[in-house]
Amino acid sequence: MALIVQKYGGTSVANVERIQNVARRVVDTAAKGHRVAVIVSAMSGETDALVALALAAGGDRPDPREYDALVSTGEQKTIALLAMAIQRLGAKARSFTGAQMGMRTDAAHTRARIVSIEKERIFEALDAGAVAVIAGFQGTDDEGNITTLGRGGSDTSAVAVAAALEADVCEIYTDVNGVYTTDPNMVPAARKLARVSFEEMLEMASLGAKVLQIRSVKLAQQYGVPLHVRSSFSDEEGTWVTREEDVMERLVVSGVTYQRNEAKIRVRGVKDQPGVSARLFTPISDAGIVVDMIVQNASEEGSTDITFTVPRGDFKRAFELTEAAGREVGATGVAGDDKIAKVSIVGLGMKDHAGVATRMFQTLADEGINIQMISTSEIKVSVVIEEKYTELAVRALHAAFVEHGAAAPTSE
Amino acid sequence: MALIVQKYGGTSVANVERIQNVARRVVDTAAKGHRVAVIVSAMSGETDALVALALAAGGDRPDPREYDALVSTGEQKTIALLAMAIQRLGAKARSFTGAQMGMRTDAAHTRARIVSIEKERIFEALDAGAVAVIAGFQGTDDEGNITTLGRGGSDTSAVAVAAALEADVCEIYTDVNGVYTTDPNMVPAARKLARVSFEEMLEMASLGAKVLQIRSVKLAQQYGVPLHVRSSFSDEEGTWVTREEDVMERLVVSGVTYQRNEAKIRVRGVKDQPGVSARLFTPISDAGIVVDMIVQNASEEGSTDITFTVPRGDFKRAFELTEAAGREVGATGVAGDDKIAKVSIVGLGMKDHAGVATRMFQTLADEGINIQMISTSEIKVSVVIEEKYTELAVRALHAAFVEHGAAAPTSE
Repeated sequence: MALIVQKYGGTSVANVERIQNVARRVVDTAAKGHRVAVIVSAMSGETDALVALALAAGGDRPDPREYDALVSTGEQKTIALLAMAIQRLGAKARSFTGAQMGMRTDAAHTRARIVSIEKERIFEALDAGAVAVIAGFQGTDDEGNITTLGRGGSDTSAVAVAAALEADVCEIYTDVNGVYTTDPNMVPAARKLARVSFEEMLEMASLGAKVLQIRSVKLAQQYGVPLHVRSSFSDEEGTWVTREEDVMERLVVSGVTYQRNEAKIRVRGVKDQPGVSARLFTPISDAGIVVDMIVQNASEEGSTDITFTVPRGDFKRAFELTEAAGREVGATGVAGDDKIAKVSIVGLGMKDHAGVATRMFQTLADEGINIQMISTSEIKVSVVIEEKYTELAVRALHAAFVEHGAAAPTSE
Repeated sequence: MALIVQKYGGTSVANVERIQNVARRVVDTAAKGHRVAVIVSAMSGETDALVALALAAGGDRPDPREYDALVSTGEQKTIALLAMAIQRLGAKARSFTGAQMGMRTDAAHTRARIVSIEKERIFEALDAGAVAVIAGFQGTDDEGNITTLGRGGSDTSAVAVAAALEADVCEIYTDVNGVYTTDPNMVPAARKLARVSFEEMLEMASLGAKVLQIRSVKLAQQYGVPLHVRSSFSDEEGTWVTREEDVMERLVVSGVTYQRNEAKIRVRGVKDQPGVSARLFTPISDAGIVVDMIVQNASEEGSTDITFTVPRGDFKRAFELTEAAGREVGATGVAGDDKIAKVSIVGLGMKDHAGVATRMFQTLADEGINIQMISTSEIKVSVVIEEKYTELAVRALHAAFVEHGAAAPTSE
C-alpha cells in the first residue's frame, strides 16, 4: 500500500465528463489499496474567464488581494465537483480549499511562496478512508487572506503536498503522455523518455518543454519527491522524473529543446572594466525584463562586446534601455535582432563525455546553420541561431544525438 | 455619520456593468461620511449554473458538504469583483468570505443557521476606512467546513451582519423599488408603501410577496434592525420595514396578496376524537409536504370535515397519502381541488377595527366570488377561492380597502 499524490491539470478536468474520468482513475487507484490525495487545477478556460472579469471590474491592475480571492474560486469549483464525482462511484472523498488544508504561504499575492502545510488535516481524511481532494494553486497568509502561487502553481502545490505527506510518488497528469526527447509535432521520430533526472528536467523545462513547471521540479528535487508525468487519457506509463542515481540509462543527450520568440541585443566596444555590466543590465532588470543568455566576448584592446537575449515581446523596450545605457558606458554601438531562436541539447551523460558540444556544432554546420551565440552548462549546450532554421536544427540534432546517437561519441 | 449595511441581490450584480453601478452607490454612501458594509449575492444565473454542474457531477443528490463548497464560490466571485470596482473608484474596500468574516453556523449543510459573527474583523476594515464587502449566503461550521444558509440566505446574512454591527439601517437593494400594496402587474393602482411593520411584512412575505425572505424579516424583527427595501437602479426612497411603533400611519389594510399554485384536500366524515388529526397529517409531513391552511368544520353527529391546502406540485402525492390515512381513520370520503388560489388582506389596523373580514366577504360576494375556506390572524384575513377569480378578487379588494378604504370602516 502506497501513498500516492495525483495532480490533474485544467485540460484533465475541463468539463464534467472529464472530471468523471478523473474520478474513475482516482477510485481505481484507491481500490488497489493505496491512499490517495488529489490536487486539481481550475477547469480549463475558467481562470482565463475570471481574469477577464477582474480586468473588466478592476481595471488594468486589479488589487492583488481581491484578484487572488477571485481566481481561487476556479480550483474550489473543481475540488467540490471531483469530490462529488468520486462519491458517486461509491468511494469516500473530502475536498479541501487552500485555507481548509492549512496551505500557509507568504503574503505575496498572485505569486505567493509556500511556507508550511498542516498535513494532519489531510491525514485525517486519508485515515478515515477518504480521498483528499485538494485545491491547487492557492493558500492563505498569516492573516487568513487568500493567496495564489502564480503560474504553474498547481504543480507546485502537488509536489509540496507530496513532500509534506512523504508520498511514494507524485503523479502529474496532463494532456501528453510523458516527456519526449523533443517536440513530437516537429520531429515525428521523437520518443518518450522512461526516466529523466531532476537536473535534466529542469534544463528542459526552463528551455521551453512545457510539461512541468520549473518551480515544481525544483521543489521535487529539493525534497526528493519522485514525479511521474503521464496522460490522464490513457493507462500507459509516462515519464518518471527522479534523482540522478535512480536514472539507469544515462543518455548523453536526453532531449533537444527549442525556444522561439527570443531576441538578442549586442553592445559593441564596451570598456572592459569593473561595473560596466552592472550599469548595462540594471535598467533592464529594473524594467522587469528577464535576460536569458549573456555572452561576453574575449576582450580586445581593453574593450569588449556583450551580447544577451531577452523575450521578443520585451525587445523594443530592452533595446531602448540598452542604447541609453550603452551611451553612458561609452559603447561604440548597439545592434539588435529579434528573429532568433535558441536550440539546446540536454543530457546527464554529457558530464562524462567530451566532444558533445563539438559534435553539435558540426551537425549544425553540416546543415549550413550559422551559430550566433553559445552557452553551456554541465548537462546542456545551447546555441542561438536564425529563427528560420529552428526546425532544421532540431531535426538534425535529434537525428544525430537521439535517433542514432544513444551511444556516446568517442572521447576527443 | 451612520453605520449602513447594504445588501445587493443577484440581479443587482448580474454583470460587471451592474457591479460598477453598485460600486458607485456604495462609494456615494461612504462619501457622505457613513461607514458601509455590503453583503452581496452571486451574480444572477451563477448559482443555477453551479447547481447544474453539481447535479451533473454528483447525481441527483450531491453530497451536501461538497455542494456548499461549490455554490459558495458564486458569492466569493462577487465580493472580489465588487471590492475591485470600489477600489477603482478611489475608495478602500476589503472582501470577506463567510470564513474570513467569522460567520459561524451550525453544520446543517445547504440550510445552515447562523450561530455567531466575529464582528471585530469587519470593524477592523471599517475602522481602516474601508468598505467591508461580505459574501452573503455562506459561513463555516465548527470544523471549518463551508456551509450555506439556503434560499434567501443573503438577506439573512445581511440582517445578521446589521444586527451584529448594530447598524443604523439594513438597506435591501432589489429590482423593485419597494413593497407595494399589491402586485402592480395585476393592479395598476397599486402604490408603494412608505412604511410597513415587521408583522405586516411577515404576513405579506409568507403570502407570496417575494420582495424579502421571511427568515430575514423574522431576524430583523428579533433584533430590531430597521430594513429599507429599495431599488438598486434608482435613488428614490423605498419601503421601510420597522417596529410597529415606528409605523406612523396604521393602515387598516396595507396590502392585498395572493398565492396561486395551491391545492386543497377535504376529508369528510372524520370521527371527532383525539388523535385523528395527527394520524391524518403525519404521513404528509413525513413526506416533506408543507401544509398551509387547515380548517376544521363544526362537528356534526360526532363526525367532522377537515380541509387543508398544499402546494399544487405536492397535490397528487398528498392526495394519495390522505386517501390511505382517511381509510384508516374511517373517513367517509376524500375530495381534492387543484384549481384554487389564496387571497389575503394584511394590515396592522385590523387589530383596532372590527368588521374588516365582513367587508372583505361582502366585496367578494358583490363580484360573485364564492369563498371556499377562511383563515384569520390578528392582522390578516385569507380566503381560498377558485383560481380563475384571482385577479378579479385582488382588484376588488385593493379598490375597496386600499384605493377607497384607507379610512377604517365603521365598527359593527
